[in-house]
Amino acid sequence: MDWRRNNSLKNFFFTCEKCAFTGRLYVENFLEKKIAKALGISHERLERAIRRRGVKFYKSIRPVLLFKKDLMHIESGTVVYITDDKLEIIRGFPKIRRTLILSPTIEKHFKDKVAVEEKMNGYNVRIASVDSKIIALTRGGYLCPFTTRKVQEFMDLERFFKDNPNFVICGEMLGTANPYVSHYYPEIGKLGFRIFDVREKTTNRPLPIKEKRKLLKDYDLPMVRLLGTFPVEKAAEKIKKIVKRLGEEGREGVVIKDPQMELPPIKYTASQAHANEIKYAFNYPFDFGRAFFFSRVIREGFQAYEMKESEDELRERAHRLGEAIIYPMVKTIKEIAEGGVAHEDTTINVSSRKEAMEFIKHLHALGVSATILEYKDGKAVIRRFHQATTDRTKNFLEGGLY
Amino acid sequence: MDWRRNNSLKNFFFTCEKCAFTGRLYVENFLEKKIAKALGISHERLERAIRRRGVKFYKSIRPVLLFKKDLMHIESGTVVYITDDKLEIIRGFPKIRRTLILSPTIEKHFKDKVAVEEKMNGYNVRIASVDSKIIALTRGGYLCPFTTRKVQEFMDLERFFKDNPNFVICGEMLGTANPYVSHYYPEIGKLGFRIFDVREKTTNRPLPIKEKRKLLKDYDLPMVRLLGTFPVEKAAEKIKKIVKRLGEEGREGVVIKDPQMELPPIKYTASQAHANEIKYAFNYPFDFGRAFFFSRVIREGFQAYEMKESEDELRERAHRLGEAIIYPMVKTIKEIAEGGVAHEDTTINVSSRKEAMEFIKHLHALGVSATILEYKDGKAVIRRFHQATTDRTKNFLEGGLY
Repeated sequence: MDWRRNNSLKNFFFTCEKCAFTGRLYVENFLEKKIAKALGISHERLERAIRRRGVKFYKSIRPVLLFKKDLMHIESGTVVYITDDKLEIIRGFPKIRRTLILSPTIEKHFKDKVAVEEKMNGYNVRIASVDSKIIALTRGGYLCPFTTRKVQEFMDLERFFKDNPNFVICGEMLGTANPYVSHYYPEIGKLGFRIFDVREKTTNRPLPIKEKRKLLKDYDLPMVRLLGTFPVEKAAEKIKKIVKRLGEEGREGVVIKDPQMELPPIKYTASQAHANEIKYAFNYPFDFGRAFFFSRVIREGFQAYEMKESEDELRERAHRLGEAIIYPMVKTIKEIAEGGVAHEDTTINVSSRKEAMEFIKHLHALGVSATILEYKDGKAVIRRFHQATTDRTKNFLEGGLY
Repeated sequence: MDWRRNNSLKNFFFTCEKCAFTGRLYVENFLEKKIAKALGISHERLERAIRRRGVKFYKSIRPVLLFKKDLMHIESGTVVYITDDKLEIIRGFPKIRRTLILSPTIEKHFKDKVAVEEKMNGYNVRIASVDSKIIALTRGGYLCPFTTRKVQEFMDLERFFKDNPNFVICGEMLGTANPYVSHYYPEIGKLGFRIFDVREKTTNRPLPIKEKRKLLKDYDLPMVRLLGTFPVEKAAEKIKKIVKRLGEEGREGVVIKDPQMELPPIKYTASQAHANEIKYAFNYPFDFGRAFFFSRVIREGFQAYEMKESEDELRERAHRLGEAIIYPMVKTIKEIAEGGVAHEDTTINVSSRKEAMEFIKHLHALGVSATILEYKDGKAVIRRFHQATTDRTKNFLEGGLY
């Protein structure tokens, strides 16, 4: 992956990079001619976004552009690479909107049928082949070295990308030994991957459900479960039962999709998942935004209404919510009062201490405070710090006013 | 209260008010010479705040200035009047900071002793005599016609203000028939008033506790309960017990004060009060900010920690919180699904329909959407609408995405 290879455009770029003025001219030209056109955004608009830091412009490392925010129809997390005279655009994974209520939303948003796939609780990953190398990007568009390595251990991606270089695999990294979002699934255990979308580079067009599932099956790649395809008028009742069962099994929820993937999908999640997220966040109350708590609480209200719960069920939901808030918060305050710091530890499997260090560097680049607590025989314990919770809790415990 | 009377300065002001230019010159002069000096803020600073609408400048009605935001040391809610050649400045009621923990905060913030007064759940009112008329201002500095009338029915204020024209009475309007914050207190019933501070006009200097209580007693004016005066090192334990008992009695909490009132007071409230506020807010979830929810939940965490609760007590606190969130929210969603709107009704006693209308107008001026639902024999039912909750809930119920 040497930048300076063969390509005249790139050579010019790198020759001029020491000279801001010439470099600038080149960049403007290049943006105008190639990237802006491929993205369908005017050169001026893109320039402005780069100046305002909404789009990051890399001078010497790949990719050349990373969209930190949405820019018109281009999703945040989009990355643009230049390889051998051609552009490679991997679009950001589109935000999936949520519904608080199943009926009448499903009938209003979809045509005659919906496909219901499981939504699993992990972290969103896009896998693509760029310059004949397989890379894995996290939601924000950063290449994660840990993920890039792991997905290739789980899956034979070479054959898929050799035949389908223009596709991006979108999926969820799952399991308890997953350094971003740790959640237990019996079929996953420590670490695993499930694919939910296959999309085209540049356009972000997703494959229809059937086509996607057939393709993935042909290449023996693991996908999320398809829980059923229902006529829209029956879907709400069916999904209610599915989500109830998923919740009882400690699973997250569903994504409701147009079988043709021409309409945007919608997500819907189980009460237990809301409580679990609240429980997790209240371990570190000052590190999570107020919007985080509020939105999850609102989901509970609408779901309880739609589920037409008995008095007992409603009480159970209320108590689950209250416990998810109070217990972790009191535990964290106690720990900090006894001199501890708010943190979470995950054990990841790596081949060397160096590989663990590389992952820590990646976390730092994302603005996450973390360190290697211990390394032994291919197991690294990563400790992540929730500084705001430690600092503010300590301040209140020492007499600071709210 | 005729503005145009006798005073040359005022005459000049009103003569010039039709002419923006001359008016402006006058205003600048006047602000510079009088108001700015009395407030201890430079003329330029005040001018800028008026331009930015942080301070409202009244041209033809009294008061002349109303501070909508803090401006340096001047509290929001401060109002400035001009009467007979002299300025009357009624400073805003200072924000009382909250502690999440009693120990070590009390020892850190106070000197040797603290006086503990009850904090009651109603709305904050400042009463003063301006131009020989008694007026009652709500927290934001608006003259409330209902409150102005009622406080004079409960209390003989004439004698107090005749002898003490330079004092401002700060207290809480309480009871169930109170149009802003309705809460039942056995000793108050429908409507009542309790005083917690007596402060000087212009400087906002509060009287020391003893002096204040003696003065109010001499004039037979009702004050909040003094629950004890304790040495700082014993106060935390004492207050824990007091607040626990207050909570069990459905009462709010305490304000902890320096007996000399030289240090700023601190407030601390009961778990039941937090749950009650959350319960109220979740009747109208989209009308009450996210901050409202989060801050109250945080209070519960720190209190549970400091109270060293048993497992049962902690579970009870968690369940109380969960129920306070879920029950009212589901009730409101149901009502809106059945075609209702989010609202609350209060019955207030007034002498005529016109008086009720006057109060509604005052609410409208504050930006509150309200109407008279019914008027009969001196009783007006006021309905207040929580529009954001109605609109957003309806939208979600009709298929809108979150």
